Amino acid sequence: MTTADQTRLVESLTDEIWRRLSAGPPAAAADHACSCQRMCSPCDISELVNHGACRVSVVPPTPSVDPATAALIDHTLLKPDATREEIVKICDEAFQYSFASVCVNPTWVPLAAEKLRCTTVKVCTVCGFPLGATLPAAKRAEACESLRVGAQEVDMVINVGALKSGDWDFVQADIHGVAEVCHAAGAITKVILETSLLNDEEKVAACLLARAAGADFVKTSTGFSTGGATPRDIALMHFVVGDGLGVKASGGVRTLEDLRKMVAAGATRIGASASVKIMEQIKTGSAGKAASGY
Amino acid sequence: MTTADQTRLVESLTDEIWRRLSAGPPAAAADHACSCQRMCSPCDISELVNHGACRVSVVPPTPSVDPATAALIDHTLLKPDATREEIVKICDEAFQYSFASVCVNPTWVPLAAEKLRCTTVKVCTVCGFPLGATLPAAKRAEACESLRVGAQEVDMVINVGALKSGDWDFVQADIHGVAEVCHAAGAITKVILETSLLNDEEKVAACLLARAAGADFVKTSTGFSTGGATPRDIALMHFVVGDGLGVKASGGVRTLEDLRKMVAAGATRIGASASVKIMEQIKTGSAGKAASGY
Repeated sequence: MTTADQTRLVESLTDEIWRRLSAGPPAAAADHACSCQRMCSPCDISELVNHGACRVSVVPPTPSVDPATAALIDHTLLKPDATREEIVKICDEAFQYSFASVCVNPTWVPLAAEKLRCTTVKVCTVCGFPLGATLPAAKRAEACESLRVGAQEVDMVINVGALKSGDWDFVQADIHGVAEVCHAAGAITKVILETSLLNDEEKVAACLLARAAGADFVKTSTGFSTGGATPRDIALMHFVVGDGLGVKASGGVRTLEDLRKMVAAGATRIGASASVKIMEQIKTGSAGKAASGY
Repeated sequence: MTTADQTRLVESLTDEIWRRLSAGPPAAAADHACSCQRMCSPCDISELVNHGACRVSVVPPTPSVDPATAALIDHTLLKPDATREEIVKICDEAFQYSFASVCVNPTWVPLAAEKLRCTTVKVCTVCGFPLGATLPAAKRAEACESLRVGAQEVDMVINVGALKSGDWDFVQADIHGVAEVCHAAGAITKVILETSLLNDEEKVAACLLARAAGADFVKTSTGFSTGGATPRDIALMHFVVGDGLGVKASGGVRTLEDLRKMVAAGATRIGASASVKIMEQIKTGSAGKAASGY
């Protein structure tokens, strides 16, 4: 797709979306009152002392070989059979390498929040994951519950079926419902498009709807569908949302070379389970071979 | 596994589970008050007349070639990119063949409930699907919302990671939370074990926990993991839960021969997307070749 083609596609869909959304964010999103607040207050030494500590030992992480790259990575473990032990391990790794976050299923948010308290590593979780086909009120309630127990970033999946059925109002309201409770709790939301299931028009429409709904990031993939991030999709998504929103590449980013391609295309965050391997490739000066999957 | 082996395994795990659950269903399940009620009252002609109809046309389905087999089948469409049109189609098919239910993602429950009103076909949906790794309160809220908009059966996924971490109380409370709101709404719940991720001990423990938690069925698979139903697993699950609970075979049931094998092993419900093909095989006298996948 040429830049002129991209521009034409975005312009035509932008007009159409604004016309159809002219009533503003739909009322449905406000129907489900939710009073989420971050329960975990900022942690500092005085607070620990107030809670009874008589001596505080702070072990800073080993300085990362490449802090800028580490800070791009959501260290991810979303397989359904992940155990408590495996979650503890990725939290330890995320602290050690100073990754942006750990990205875990909601059931592990309380554990990750406890393990990463007093660190700079955020707790990221998913919502409506990986199919995106839950009801909007359920998606919002799920986000609320994750925020209540410590999530600071929520990666929600769009309603792909509604998008493909042309129900743009529904898709936007679904995103808005989650973004609203995230922002009320001081958290951010990333909107997963599941790009491998969409054509270019649908990718552009989804980006525009995410932006209109107040999302903070658009994100390519769940890692549970038929494909993951590609530099082409990242470039298209970045082109549509501009610099106001982040773009997260996820699914199939397995090597330093993969990561660099995504960043060159416009990605500002990377979701990866091979994060430690990627950091070790930086240390050893090996870029790794790009994953061929996607 | 011999019958003696099965018996030993079940007995030892039963003792262990009852000891650990001696406090009865955990209090957590009662923390989340929910007042779900079925919104869709039974529909009959007088009600239609009360609502303004002056003439009621009732088109009964074509008599099924094998009503007993049709009544075993949950006609299933759970892919995330299913469109409105495809959901309408499976509702029409379910009515035509008199299947037990349509099984759709929560976002399509209102549409399916509307399409199948005044028929014997139930609306089945999924919960915590397909990873089972949402928080218990979110899973319960999701079930509530689906029941509110018309679901009559809820197939929930167990928390596989918690099971593998030995948190049996957590797994049981998670199931109980959903079963409770389903029963309050006059609905049933099926508990998906995702057998392909479990060893035999875990399968038996999951069946016992589902029974203790008040579930109505145990079910093998989501269809989104590494494997589906096998006659061996169905036989084991039936052996553990007895006749008091149903057993649903799902994932990879693609032919009449597959279906017959599952029923022979003890399945009382079949989840299939190839339901129409299976019914046509009955009509033409072809059993089809068993799917080799699982």
